[in-house]
Amino acid sequence: MLVPMSNVYAVIMAGGAGTRFWPASRLLRPKQLLPLAGDGEESLLAATVRRLAPLVPADRIVVVTGEHLAEATANAVPGVPRSHILSEPAPRNTAPCIAWATATVARLDPEARVMVLPSDHFITDEGEFRRVLERAIETASSGRVTTVGIVPTRPETGYGYIEVGEALGDTAGHAKRVVRFVEKPDRAGAEGFYRSGKHLWNAGMFFFRASDMAQLVKDHLPALSEGITTIDEAARNGTEAETVRRIFPTLPSVSIDHGVMEKAEGLAVVPGDFGWNDVGSWQSAWELGAQDSSGNTLAVGSVAIDAKRNLVRTSGKGKKVVALVGVSDLVVVETEDAILILPRERSQDVRLVVEALRASGRTDLL
Amino acid sequence: MLVPMSNVYAVIMAGGAGTRFWPASRLLRPKQLLPLAGDGEESLLAATVRRLAPLVPADRIVVVTGEHLAEATANAVPGVPRSHILSEPAPRNTAPCIAWATATVARLDPEARVMVLPSDHFITDEGEFRRVLERAIETASSGRVTTVGIVPTRPETGYGYIEVGEALGDTAGHAKRVVRFVEKPDRAGAEGFYRSGKHLWNAGMFFFRASDMAQLVKDHLPALSEGITTIDEAARNGTEAETVRRIFPTLPSVSIDHGVMEKAEGLAVVPGDFGWNDVGSWQSAWELGAQDSSGNTLAVGSVAIDAKRNLVRTSGKGKKVVALVGVSDLVVVETEDAILILPRERSQDVRLVVEALRASGRTDLL
Repeated sequence: MLVPMSNVYAVIMAGGAGTRFWPASRLLRPKQLLPLAGDGEESLLAATVRRLAPLVPADRIVVVTGEHLAEATANAVPGVPRSHILSEPAPRNTAPCIAWATATVARLDPEARVMVLPSDHFITDEGEFRRVLERAIETASSGRVTTVGIVPTRPETGYGYIEVGEALGDTAGHAKRVVRFVEKPDRAGAEGFYRSGKHLWNAGMFFFRASDMAQLVKDHLPALSEGITTIDEAARNGTEAETVRRIFPTLPSVSIDHGVMEKAEGLAVVPGDFGWNDVGSWQSAWELGAQDSSGNTLAVGSVAIDAKRNLVRTSGKGKKVVALVGVSDLVVVETEDAILILPRERSQDVRLVVEALRASGRTDLL
Repeated sequence: MLVPMSNVYAVIMAGGAGTRFWPASRLLRPKQLLPLAGDGEESLLAATVRRLAPLVPADRIVVVTGEHLAEATANAVPGVPRSHILSEPAPRNTAPCIAWATATVARLDPEARVMVLPSDHFITDEGEFRRVLERAIETASSGRVTTVGIVPTRPETGYGYIEVGEALGDTAGHAKRVVRFVEKPDRAGAEGFYRSGKHLWNAGMFFFRASDMAQLVKDHLPALSEGITTIDEAARNGTEAETVRRIFPTLPSVSIDHGVMEKAEGLAVVPGDFGWNDVGSWQSAWELGAQDSSGNTLAVGSVAIDAKRNLVRTSGKGKKVVALVGVSDLVVVETEDAILILPRERSQDVRLVVEALRASGRTDLL
């Protein structure tokens, strides 16, 4: 290990309420609480905590989620102290989330170094992932707010990019200067970024000393900084819960990218190439699942005849047998109360179903 | 009414154990016990009994089925006397079935005229259907064994045909001479039959005086006739059940078409054109269902977005919502323990699933 990790804390952002995995995902059972990658029963959030274990033990992990998800989240990561599950009474995007979690960590250890990680991604090479995290923490230890950028594997238009500059001499050699953060590009832009060799995917991972982030928030988002200070003082007086409920919903709703990163100077980025997947849709779940020789990712007991490249998931009572004959490239998902069938390439259109159900008053299915 | 129907009995053949409607149909829940046509809950068998009511009351209906289906069959047609549900201890094809039922009817009324009908067909124009039955019974009353032939609507290769001869002068004008019964033709043969105007579909409906059929069986299938005589004598002595169990499995297994109809002289046929459908596959169920403006026949509460000409059936607990996006011409059937998905045009391939399940020992799903 290059860096002593004793004062490193992880903040896991687990507030997502995506609809892209309907019918498996619901308002009270969002993506990060589902076992969407691979074939086991481990939720994406539990996997996130588990893969950190050699670097950051569970009692130095803070998980931020929505109030309505607090219980389910705590149950999903039993190793994380209950007091480390922070419940947002209202979603205010990532800047308030990270600022609050950072203040919480700083009370535990004013010298803390913090890694902020999403809760709902999949990593193939966990060893390499941890090595990259170490490099990023090492870089952040020098006072540079650092991000990890994913080495692109295709000209993706669905992600933001980070333009990379020269190697930073004051770090251990892996870190480079961030030239700028770039919004999701169009097709031509994505092709250019992919060919440039100078652009990485922004995967929403950030590394910093707690004091550095507090200063950046103070500099760029003073209203947020003030609100967090109020909450922090209340926490020191044992009245955090009611203060959060009063103050948090009034904080500026802004992303850490827009609110801080795009304005900050001297940011560093460490390239990461560890088999990253943001598990963005059923298409991703198919890619990450164990495919048989016909390219099918099937539920146990399924029958597939002349059927290729399908994803089948069942979670309803009794584990029904799913029989496919002569169909290809479909997503088939069964739950207690619903069945979804659509072509894999239209995975994003799950939202159309959610909208239709909302419009027809079937909120019980959302 | 042209003919007094007072001594007319109906024999309904309900021994089918089809697998073509898996997963809805099972060994103990065959096609005729399922509500496969239209959108109600009425089984095909119950519909068969109901549509006869103006012509033949339920207490003059005899239903022949397999021993294992006797209870379910009796429950499906509560108006039919329990003693009129004949249970075959082993399937021996249609000739023993019809001969036994005919003997049973003849004990009730030696002058009985009998109509033999399948239990698993769908009829659109029930009034016309009954008018055709009346004509057929009238023709049979003169001593000619009569069948109803369906006027073809397409060059179908899946049915046998009846070649029609000249009008029979000794009948009321609708009946024609049967030239011959023809096996299922190849494509070219079917095209020729369809164009000829001289061929009708053999729908397995037969009309005769009980005494005429007994004589035909005696003439052409003497071993069967002998066995039925033994059973009939036992029935008169109150020992039918054990005699059937002993004798029936030894009767020659032969169809009424091969064993009797193709050998008999002077047969008559009455053309029928009343919207007949043999409900042969999920394709038929889609055709017969209420299609929405996109051609979908859906279960209640389904969501269909950019989805056309699909059939969706649910019968599992809780009536799941089925959401279809961007898929067309599929069959989707959900039951308590299984989900089937296949293209409508491959409806016949349901049997491949049944074979695969049998091969893998999943007899609980058959």
